Amino acid sequence: MKAEIIGIGTELLMGELTDTNSAWIASRLPALGIQLQWVSIVGDDLPMLTEAFKSGMKRSDIIFTTGGLGPTQDDLTREAIAAAFGETPTVQPEVVEDLERYFAARGTPMPQHNIKQANLIPSARFVPNRNGTAPGWWAERDGKIIICMPGPPSENHSMWQEQIEPQLAELIEDEVTITRNIKTMGMSEGAVDEVISEFFGVENPYLGIYSKADGIHLRVIARAKSSESARAMIAPVELAIHDRLGEYVWGYDDETPEQAAGKSLLAKGLSLAVMETCTGGALTNSITNVPESISYFKGGLVAYDGAALRAIGVPAAVLDNHGVVSQQTANAMAEAVRRNLNADLGVGLSGVTGPGELEGKPLGLAYISVTNGKRSREMEMRLPPRQVTIKRRVPNQALIELRRLIEEIS
Amino acid sequence: MKAEIIGIGTELLMGELTDTNSAWIASRLPALGIQLQWVSIVGDDLPMLTEAFKSGMKRSDIIFTTGGLGPTQDDLTREAIAAAFGETPTVQPEVVEDLERYFAARGTPMPQHNIKQANLIPSARFVPNRNGTAPGWWAERDGKIIICMPGPPSENHSMWQEQIEPQLAELIEDEVTITRNIKTMGMSEGAVDEVISEFFGVENPYLGIYSKADGIHLRVIARAKSSESARAMIAPVELAIHDRLGEYVWGYDDETPEQAAGKSLLAKGLSLAVMETCTGGALTNSITNVPESISYFKGGLVAYDGAALRAIGVPAAVLDNHGVVSQQTANAMAEAVRRNLNADLGVGLSGVTGPGELEGKPLGLAYISVTNGKRSREMEMRLPPRQVTIKRRVPNQALIELRRLIEEIS
Repeated sequence: MKAEIIGIGTELLMGELTDTNSAWIASRLPALGIQLQWVSIVGDDLPMLTEAFKSGMKRSDIIFTTGGLGPTQDDLTREAIAAAFGETPTVQPEVVEDLERYFAARGTPMPQHNIKQANLIPSARFVPNRNGTAPGWWAERDGKIIICMPGPPSENHSMWQEQIEPQLAELIEDEVTITRNIKTMGMSEGAVDEVISEFFGVENPYLGIYSKADGIHLRVIARAKSSESARAMIAPVELAIHDRLGEYVWGYDDETPEQAAGKSLLAKGLSLAVMETCTGGALTNSITNVPESISYFKGGLVAYDGAALRAIGVPAAVLDNHGVVSQQTANAMAEAVRRNLNADLGVGLSGVTGPGELEGKPLGLAYISVTNGKRSREMEMRLPPRQVTIKRRVPNQALIELRRLIEEIS
Repeated sequence: MKAEIIGIGTELLMGELTDTNSAWIASRLPALGIQLQWVSIVGDDLPMLTEAFKSGMKRSDIIFTTGGLGPTQDDLTREAIAAAFGETPTVQPEVVEDLERYFAARGTPMPQHNIKQANLIPSARFVPNRNGTAPGWWAERDGKIIICMPGPPSENHSMWQEQIEPQLAELIEDEVTITRNIKTMGMSEGAVDEVISEFFGVENPYLGIYSKADGIHLRVIARAKSSESARAMIAPVELAIHDRLGEYVWGYDDETPEQAAGKSLLAKGLSLAVMETCTGGALTNSITNVPESISYFKGGLVAYDGAALRAIGVPAAVLDNHGVVSQQTANAMAEAVRRNLNADLGVGLSGVTGPGELEGKPLGLAYISVTNGKRSREMEMRLPPRQVTIKRRVPNQALIELRRLIEEIS
């Protein structure tokens, strides 16, 4: 089954907003046995959009669209499909009622413009949107399918996961593709590549290697008639990766470092508190991205000056003797926050906040400490002097060290 | 001058590699007076690529391509243009010599495959590549221009900056495009749309409306012979937006809420400290994304249980009388963190952390408090019950309230 994606919105052509939905949807198609062959980004322009639908329907079986479903005059996805199909949209009263309820729940009357979102053509049906006012469309004509989703990624992804993917899976009984993603941290891309080199260059199962902010990822992709056969093709590759890289593996598939650490904390019934400087809250923020963190996370303290560090429990003597940027201060931060917030485990991240040097130490230098009060893991990191890199890499490494400490003490 | 971009490469359709070149190039076109109207991503497939060039040449004056210039059998950009133009490529001996020199400098003989990169058609000329083996192409036929650049972003961007952009600027003594982005918070998209509806549907200056996590953005785009004329076309629309929506406007152009608030803090020489519950560090993390925050930000405290709230300075009496999720607790948090971290201004964010209810209050309910110890701003928010929305919207609103308080007290 051949597919294409049309990303809709003039803002996507202005270079200010990047179309991330297309890559996200693209990554979900192989497992469904759908082959993506074209992506277009088109502005809010009726003749262009109509052209995009017409040429897409000639070469593809299924077209996914994102965006252009809002209430304004710019939102033309529905109109373009109606034009491409030669059909006339009419307002569906039951959807108007849904919209009125949506606004009433927010204590405000529905703007008249929103009625547009209740329009439908005979060849289409609505796809409910739990997270916004714009319902999706599922249109079928002459053996071709057009599926329209909203543009905001949160609405887009939830509609995909809850509605679109399950309905597509029922529709398609073709080849399946199974992907296994194995995540490592601590070896360079070149070193990983050498250790498992004989698996590269094979078409099926295919092995890919990717360098990411949370380490080196190895992705094994197998295509077969059934999930079982595809999994059987993956198994020997995965086994070899474990044999040779086992100690560096920290997670699988979509797992993030904060999820992997959270899983270990939950499994052992341990609680956590953290204190950061140079990462400015990035560690705390990623820990709390895991909904289950409410059961194991006590809190996070972010200090952006020495006085604040002392105010939140780091002994002045440590700061005076070793400086803010030191392994000793990271250790003191981990222990102080563990005690003050009454947690089993504490993490301390100390480093140069930027923009320039601090205490004669360069931007990019950071110290990690993880402790349960008895046993600790320490690490020094030297990263490129860019805050965005520091805020991404140091928390990831700290969470992986945390997971390793939990394994050591269990 | 109307343009389109074709991103070339099957890997871009697999969802593993995102096409970042297109958005990068897109952001550089308005200042050149080039209007981007279409982006396509196409795999390494000769008939598809030829189709992309043919339909692109029908609707656009200029086509930019990225990728497909390498030495392998998959690299088909040159072949597709030759097919679309009906011309035959021939090997250019002087480029073969360049390639041989490139490899010799790296101490290795040129692989035979690379000869392919010396192919040229009569309607094209080479664009030198300082950073790799693949030269670009600049092809012109029937008044249309096709410009081919390599796919790796470092090669792509340097070729653009050093070769393509200067040559385009000479070519085009046409129009300039000026964009003005006005950011509001506090009115719904539909309501904003209604208030300024007479400006929509005009082609030049064009007014677009976009719903974002930090409110409703209005973008005015004007094309004219000079920057001055373009600005003069924007002025009356901007004035009308200010007249009708002024109190909701919080920023302009690329400004984020944390930058807008940071600018106000810096201008007034005020310092800031924050305390959060339901947003889990998202506010602290976005404040520290602004490098200048080191001069005004003292620190952030994130409490994920009541004990932690008390430990970091919220009076037990307030928690007992009003609950964790209340305006009173948000106020106490703002004041406690302001005092404890010795800052001029304090922000408190209290709300339901999820996953379910807290104190019988629903996920999505949050309270904001901003104070300088004498004067405060308070706000209750009711959001959809999703953590990702809460973590994005509540900090944005708090930063906008902070900016409003600074204006009030100055």
